[in-house]
Amino acid sequence: MQQHPAVPHLVTAQTGPLLDLEQRILDALPAIERWFRLQWHEHLPPFYGSVDLRNAGYKLAPVDMNLFPGGFNNLSEDTLPTAVQAAQNAIERLCPDARNLLLIPERHTRNQYYLTNVSRLVRILQLTGVEVRIGSLSEEVTQPTRIELASGDEFVIEPLVRRGNRLGLADFDPCVILLNNDLSAGIPRVLAGLDEQVIVPPLQAGWAIRRKSNHFAAYDQVAADFAQLVDIDPWLINPYFGRCGQVNFHERAGEECVASNIDFVLSRMREKYREHGVTDTPYVVVKADAGTYGMGVMTVRDANEVRGLNRKQRNKMAVVKEGLEVTEVIIQEGVPTREDVDGAAAEPVVYMIDRCVVGGFYRVHTERGRDENLNAPGMHFVPLAFAGSCNLPDCRAKAAGSAPNRFYSYGVVARLALLAASIELESTASRVAAPAAPVAAAIAG
Amino acid sequence: MQQHPAVPHLVTAQTGPLLDLEQRILDALPAIERWFRLQWHEHLPPFYGSVDLRNAGYKLAPVDMNLFPGGFNNLSEDTLPTAVQAAQNAIERLCPDARNLLLIPERHTRNQYYLTNVSRLVRILQLTGVEVRIGSLSEEVTQPTRIELASGDEFVIEPLVRRGNRLGLADFDPCVILLNNDLSAGIPRVLAGLDEQVIVPPLQAGWAIRRKSNHFAAYDQVAADFAQLVDIDPWLINPYFGRCGQVNFHERAGEECVASNIDFVLSRMREKYREHGVTDTPYVVVKADAGTYGMGVMTVRDANEVRGLNRKQRNKMAVVKEGLEVTEVIIQEGVPTREDVDGAAAEPVVYMIDRCVVGGFYRVHTERGRDENLNAPGMHFVPLAFAGSCNLPDCRAKAAGSAPNRFYSYGVVARLALLAASIELESTASRVAAPAAPVAAAIAG
Repeated sequence: MQQHPAVPHLVTAQTGPLLDLEQRILDALPAIERWFRLQWHEHLPPFYGSVDLRNAGYKLAPVDMNLFPGGFNNLSEDTLPTAVQAAQNAIERLCPDARNLLLIPERHTRNQYYLTNVSRLVRILQLTGVEVRIGSLSEEVTQPTRIELASGDEFVIEPLVRRGNRLGLADFDPCVILLNNDLSAGIPRVLAGLDEQVIVPPLQAGWAIRRKSNHFAAYDQVAADFAQLVDIDPWLINPYFGRCGQVNFHERAGEECVASNIDFVLSRMREKYREHGVTDTPYVVVKADAGTYGMGVMTVRDANEVRGLNRKQRNKMAVVKEGLEVTEVIIQEGVPTREDVDGAAAEPVVYMIDRCVVGGFYRVHTERGRDENLNAPGMHFVPLAFAGSCNLPDCRAKAAGSAPNRFYSYGVVARLALLAASIELESTASRVAAPAAPVAAAIAG
Repeated sequence: MQQHPAVPHLVTAQTGPLLDLEQRILDALPAIERWFRLQWHEHLPPFYGSVDLRNAGYKLAPVDMNLFPGGFNNLSEDTLPTAVQAAQNAIERLCPDARNLLLIPERHTRNQYYLTNVSRLVRILQLTGVEVRIGSLSEEVTQPTRIELASGDEFVIEPLVRRGNRLGLADFDPCVILLNNDLSAGIPRVLAGLDEQVIVPPLQAGWAIRRKSNHFAAYDQVAADFAQLVDIDPWLINPYFGRCGQVNFHERAGEECVASNIDFVLSRMREKYREHGVTDTPYVVVKADAGTYGMGVMTVRDANEVRGLNRKQRNKMAVVKEGLEVTEVIIQEGVPTREDVDGAAAEPVVYMIDRCVVGGFYRVHTERGRDENLNAPGMHFVPLAFAGSCNLPDCRAKAAGSAPNRFYSYGVVARLALLAASIELESTASRVAAPAAPVAAAIAG
């Protein structure tokens, strides 16, 4: 099989059971696509999402699912038609006669990469036939503010205006409010109780309420169902995890809970490694159960490591984005990446809108190992023409392991995580609908 | 603006009101896309379709709409993801739990181009997650027959098996039956009365019942509504037409009806030419009201031309595909093409699935003039990366007339014809639903 021209010197490991997994996924394509079609009849897809995958050679699994994806700028230009078509489906479902859409981005307005993401997102949305304007949660935005990008593109960010139960801009009343802000700082009062407009993703998708452990609990069920469909061990697509709910790294509270969960996950991994003949040294990743993946992350090979954390390590784990204190952690099976781009460790990130894979890229880090978190300063991105390859395996090239076929598997596993997110959001919907204790606490100034 | 790399030496005329039309269409993009969204809430899109467009510089109009498109092989490979996504939408709407789809192609099984179209169509459909098998209306296919293509691809054509009110193959019971056969020879008995399965396009889309004049009557209304939306003269996107219902070219019956309609269309054209400052010599195209565009077509500049047809000319007009006698003709305003590819006259053909533009190509004829029918032996095809450009005008490049922006207009006008086809099929549905006189006559052995 020819290499995809968009992937420079891409090397993918092609050993062990993954080849078998890929072949099973390819062989079951009609059944898989039909299964997804039926699942999306039962469950509303999130408006969009991105999934970090790890391909260990012997297993291929999601390790994180972002419901406010901020890297649309990293997708190759040729993925746009698919993205527009998918966004059209989403808007049609939410608000068929939508004329106006309000986009609420992250508060930090100086990061050029993020602003380029916003610009790309605006373009996709405009092309679906809605007027898109941008409202800011930042108190610093008190009047329409023009943002210019290095590319020459520009857009205007405006202050939000709340009128009773509706949110908009001074002269703009939207039907749909699209969040590209993960609400790490809590649910702003201005977003609470908007019962006349559609807000997507729903408020419970924000980190004020969302927990990674809820996501992976939903994923457990999705992965089990899917594994039955294609007749595989669900472990091949699903990382083990545990959770601790009352941790205080500064005060060393909850250390024993974390340590025992590490032991538990490592022992289950050892069993599976034996079963599948994997010779790697198992490790787990400890990370904040709520909050952005890139912060508060630790790789651990032995439970004793968390018992003796020094002050610097504890400080690093104790807070995530917007200075939030970490009190809940997830202990997740580490899935090493066997992929590299130009010799550097790489992991695929798959972007989806509505039910569709719309693109993706490799996150690459030249200074990190294959068992480390790559979502860290120094990373860079290599776009993939995923739109083609994730939807379009070459079934005639029966040799699994070829790049386009591997990419189809990526698209399938990413969509499993998307489906899990949908189920997760259904199960947590009541935490916003009845704004009792947890939400009241989550609503910020 | 840079030229699209897929278009070799493409020259598009950029004079007169069309630039203005393109600019209006670009400016109204959000309103247009929203309008289509609302229209598709009222009207079911045909499963697929292709539209022949003519770009005269001063006007851009559809001249034919094919509901059984046979040129999927002419689309560039990179249009596939969009096509799969669109087909997924269509199948989801028709039969959400569809597992099996039966494709019924044209009877002629030796044309390699057409067979490659079938192969491409099968690939698109399979990737949506249905099992696709192919059933033939040909009596010569009495057992599963393997078809091998020059590309190395292959597929099997099997005899149809009717069981009561269901149609399938010996061991295959489909939920959806997709016709890629225009039923020029009438509605086969084996297709009549299948009330348990979804047949798309519906039987009234076949030339046994369909009339071009019904299509363009529906298009009149669509074009008028759209023209109001973007504030243009509807003539800029709509060719005038007339119709004669009782013609017999062999016996010279109905000649006066044809001649007077030619006079009428030419006189209305002269008015519009004066109004818009067009200096071309007006001409009309006389063609069979039912049947394939490529046959039974005549270019006429003066009504007297049809009064003195010689035997050869009359024979040429008298029959279309499958030897059907022409008794009804449409007299359509001729729209000259101002586009050429490598110096040869060219016209854009836009392919759609469900509500989406999925690709297109230029039909090019080196031996025909810009006021002639290009759908004739000797034509060839130049694929366009339409999927990108038809959905993705570069709104920042405000200079209309650039290739991507022109292509957006093509996609819009093609979708207007698709919408007209949808309305046309609604209005003719009763001719199949109550199989009284017209259908009984249309049902062939």
